[in-house]
Amino acid sequence: MERKERLDLLRKVLAGDDISAMIIPSTDPHFGEYIPDHYKVLEWLSGFTGEAATLVVTQKEAALWVDSRFFIQAAAQLEGSGIEMMKLKVEGTPSVADWLKARLEADDIVAMDEDLFPYSEYMEMMDSLAPLSPALIEDPFDKVWKDRPTLQFNPVRYVDETVSGESVSSKHGRLVEKLRGPVPFAYVVTALDEVAWLCNIRGTDIEYNPLALSYAVVTEECITLFLRQEMLEHEAAAALHRQGVILKDYEEFGRFLKALPKTCVRIFSSGKITAKYFFAAMDNVHQRSPFSPYVPDPVPGGTLAMMKAVKNAVELEGFRKAFIEDAKAMAKVIDWIKANVGSGITEYDVAVKLIECRSECPDYLGESFPAIVAFGANAAMPHYMPSEQGSAVIRPEGFLLIDTGAQYTYGTTDTTRTVPLGPLTQRQKDDYTAVLKGMIDLSMAVFRKGMRGCLLDILARGPVMKAGRMYLHGTSHGIGHNLCVHEGPQSIRMEENRVPLVEGMVMSNEPAAYIEGEYGIRHENVITVVQHEGHEYGDFYRFETLTALPIDLSPVNFDMLDSAERSWIEGFNARCGVIAQ
Amino acid sequence: MERKERLDLLRKVLAGDDISAMIIPSTDPHFGEYIPDHYKVLEWLSGFTGEAATLVVTQKEAALWVDSRFFIQAAAQLEGSGIEMMKLKVEGTPSVADWLKARLEADDIVAMDEDLFPYSEYMEMMDSLAPLSPALIEDPFDKVWKDRPTLQFNPVRYVDETVSGESVSSKHGRLVEKLRGPVPFAYVVTALDEVAWLCNIRGTDIEYNPLALSYAVVTEECITLFLRQEMLEHEAAAALHRQGVILKDYEEFGRFLKALPKTCVRIFSSGKITAKYFFAAMDNVHQRSPFSPYVPDPVPGGTLAMMKAVKNAVELEGFRKAFIEDAKAMAKVIDWIKANVGSGITEYDVAVKLIECRSECPDYLGESFPAIVAFGANAAMPHYMPSEQGSAVIRPEGFLLIDTGAQYTYGTTDTTRTVPLGPLTQRQKDDYTAVLKGMIDLSMAVFRKGMRGCLLDILARGPVMKAGRMYLHGTSHGIGHNLCVHEGPQSIRMEENRVPLVEGMVMSNEPAAYIEGEYGIRHENVITVVQHEGHEYGDFYRFETLTALPIDLSPVNFDMLDSAERSWIEGFNARCGVIAQ
Repeated sequence: MERKERLDLLRKVLAGDDISAMIIPSTDPHFGEYIPDHYKVLEWLSGFTGEAATLVVTQKEAALWVDSRFFIQAAAQLEGSGIEMMKLKVEGTPSVADWLKARLEADDIVAMDEDLFPYSEYMEMMDSLAPLSPALIEDPFDKVWKDRPTLQFNPVRYVDETVSGESVSSKHGRLVEKLRGPVPFAYVVTALDEVAWLCNIRGTDIEYNPLALSYAVVTEECITLFLRQEMLEHEAAAALHRQGVILKDYEEFGRFLKALPKTCVRIFSSGKITAKYFFAAMDNVHQRSPFSPYVPDPVPGGTLAMMKAVKNAVELEGFRKAFIEDAKAMAKVIDWIKANVGSGITEYDVAVKLIECRSECPDYLGESFPAIVAFGANAAMPHYMPSEQGSAVIRPEGFLLIDTGAQYTYGTTDTTRTVPLGPLTQRQKDDYTAVLKGMIDLSMAVFRKGMRGCLLDILARGPVMKAGRMYLHGTSHGIGHNLCVHEGPQSIRMEENRVPLVEGMVMSNEPAAYIEGEYGIRHENVITVVQHEGHEYGDFYRFETLTALPIDLSPVNFDMLDSAERSWIEGFNARCGVIAQ
Repeated sequence: MERKERLDLLRKVLAGDDISAMIIPSTDPHFGEYIPDHYKVLEWLSGFTGEAATLVVTQKEAALWVDSRFFIQAAAQLEGSGIEMMKLKVEGTPSVADWLKARLEADDIVAMDEDLFPYSEYMEMMDSLAPLSPALIEDPFDKVWKDRPTLQFNPVRYVDETVSGESVSSKHGRLVEKLRGPVPFAYVVTALDEVAWLCNIRGTDIEYNPLALSYAVVTEECITLFLRQEMLEHEAAAALHRQGVILKDYEEFGRFLKALPKTCVRIFSSGKITAKYFFAAMDNVHQRSPFSPYVPDPVPGGTLAMMKAVKNAVELEGFRKAFIEDAKAMAKVIDWIKANVGSGITEYDVAVKLIECRSECPDYLGESFPAIVAFGANAAMPHYMPSEQGSAVIRPEGFLLIDTGAQYTYGTTDTTRTVPLGPLTQRQKDDYTAVLKGMIDLSMAVFRKGMRGCLLDILARGPVMKAGRMYLHGTSHGIGHNLCVHEGPQSIRMEENRVPLVEGMVMSNEPAAYIEGEYGIRHENVITVVQHEGHEYGDFYRFETLTALPIDLSPVNFDMLDSAERSWIEGFNARCGVIAQ
């Protein structure tokens, strides 16, 4: 079926309900980076496969809003669809609301799917759409998408304390300690990785993220966990029961929210909740309640997200082990590339080889994201991914950029290496060194407790800017423990983020330089925040590097490194060598 | 008259109006760093001379809220006053509102002086004081302060374009361009330095800041300038007239605000306005106006403040000249100190000598702030100032910290040098070098257009933190052009500040290390943001240093500097040498 037909089917359903337009985001009710196929309605309608976009469909037109990361991809994928691309943050691009207001009449109904719209965005849309009439509707796609994939519920495993380092009851106790106030609370958790961390469960319902479709509601007394119960093996259910976790079916979540006691405050973890579930949670609240029934999460970034971001000693030990396993596999792949370069191997072959070598480890669970293997000019695109058909042949020249990560039962990895494969120009060597210098300088940072990530960004980005290059993405994201490879709430990037860096956080360290049409360089280690002893002026932190794969120093222009930087990188490589044995 | 008596006189006046308590801030209606003696009511009542505090007086008690900078000073100055010190941001310290609520009954009246309370703080106080009854009152201090100094209005001079680099009409035109919208506007300017910059006038009504007591209201058609007209010489008035500036008396400001047309929006420059003048400006607005009569300043940091912060070529040339003059004087003083150390000279003598040597330049107008001259352990207090009686004798050992600045007709200076006067320990040398490394690293920064100051902070602070030291103040403040030595809206500090760094901004660069009871080190140059040519990834900036006084390298541990840092500082000193000739 053509996209035009699909859009027209949707239009017909909408017209039947007197709806003039619909706004369709690329989210699911859990707001994760990867979403179940069941919720890929935007992709089904538009053909666009990128992870962030907003599709707007009127009875006559359709348009897709994307940010600069996706301009090229969207242009290609929208071709022939009749859907117009709207470039976000580009002069002259109207907002969704303005675009709709220019096309519709006052009081025309603009629909939003109650399952896909975050409550906060729905409220903003309400404001900006006036005088149009916004309306929340039930998922209309079942009616138009004939072979729509159903939600998949796979087996859920329980992670005991030898791996998680903390029991569910201990996590529950610590969370209650942070949330307890003058009136009872219900802390509503919709993010799958937050539920997984809190309840020590893992699943395979989401690609790359070892998560189970689930919700949780935490009160002072207990955790109520909503998931497909038959997917939980008997011992796991028993372990959760023992720790006071009450199990309910995934589909019970809405009814449970509606039945929340009148007199408890609702806190939505990290503020994330769909419009549907927000209103469900407010169903039972007196209009003239003596207290505000909706309390924002008291911790910047989210109380539970912050607890999850700070890893305990057992989790950190697991990360170290994961990085050693991963270094072994990646070293083997890099050796294989160097031995076979010029024999016709492609970027895609390398991606396959990575899975093959990692699979030798019995604790390997799969990739933590699709591997980026980019040769030459392909690496100038930060998120290039090789496809099975038509990926580039790797030649004995320039750089091959490999950015890849894996899930192990005891940790999640994310590593980027830029592999020199042949003769390099002086500028290539200098760029390689500038990016490395940035990675080293961030690795050597010393900083005071309470400092935010943006304060450290220039340590990594500065040497790149001085070299006349730039990267526009962040320097660092948080990494989950056998959870999402991109997790918050902390970050190291130019944008303000109120969340302070805290001992135990695990983060990437990935400066880069992209030279369009020529080459791209990125070095990425994973670091964790540790105490910096012996400072008299309060608590200070530094980083410990978890990654165990050495960095090729053959392209380095050592004149650009000072002695401290040189000894750091030589020490790092030596340590990797020792670990590998 | 004792402070107890003064407080009781005030209590009597308040009681006559049924007022239970009064909140007295340390501000004036222009919210400047230095305030006219007329407004020093907090000091008169409490004896506290620091620049930031809040005094609260009830019929029985009185308390003064101060931040950590003033804990020691306030403790000393409040002794015997019966006024309790309240330490801000210290666990257990109640807020002003909570303290009052614990002492008063519901509906008790809490007074605030309409001239001293910023509108925004008054509104916050309204919220937090409930169920008490907040009330704005007219200045009650004339009734109790017998010999209260009257407001001083001194002669006002006009600065022509050979010094200011831009006519008033050009500034008006550019401002209108930025503020013009669908309805007429009145842009209300209350900050004295903003009025001075906009109208190219300077005065001597405020200590250290060459400002005239004045207000301005800008509309699309003209600037209305409120000042004591007889203090403006004839040619100055004529020049302003020619540029479309309408002159009115200082006291006319309130009446003018009350008469603002119904149909124009009110914009308060940088959001600064007293409660009294806010309500005056709203006097004429229909309750059910079709548009919001109060529009926030559209530019983060303030439209006019931002224009003022970005210096033109003539202003920058003036700064360069001022720094050369200032370097000559400071070099002479430092030579004099070295020649006379050990002969009994004191910190205070140095402060006097600074004024004496600077006065040799005919363009010198006075200090831009009271000089900090701090020997040995005194320098561990960031804001130590020597008094005439009892300042320390300077001995031939350790460091003497001098932080001083001046006003010249063509610019404002601010320089800190840490002068070694005798044998130093290795740790003293290392600390001196670490602070210097921070100053150099910030000087060498390369950064992208749009970046905020906090992103650069760690370049200066990082080397200090790595050396096991710390400073808690900002790294950099803006500096006015023959205006305030501390000006906004930009800054380089750990705290978030949305204002980006822009080409032409003039700022300090002053990392430091404070070792309590031992010594303090600070190096301060003044830098300006300039284009960094030859970058392919957008507009990039770097800094040019304006300061022309060399830095003593004799204490430097060169092992701690890399070759780029070493050549930067040697180049800087060499350039200072050339300039001095």
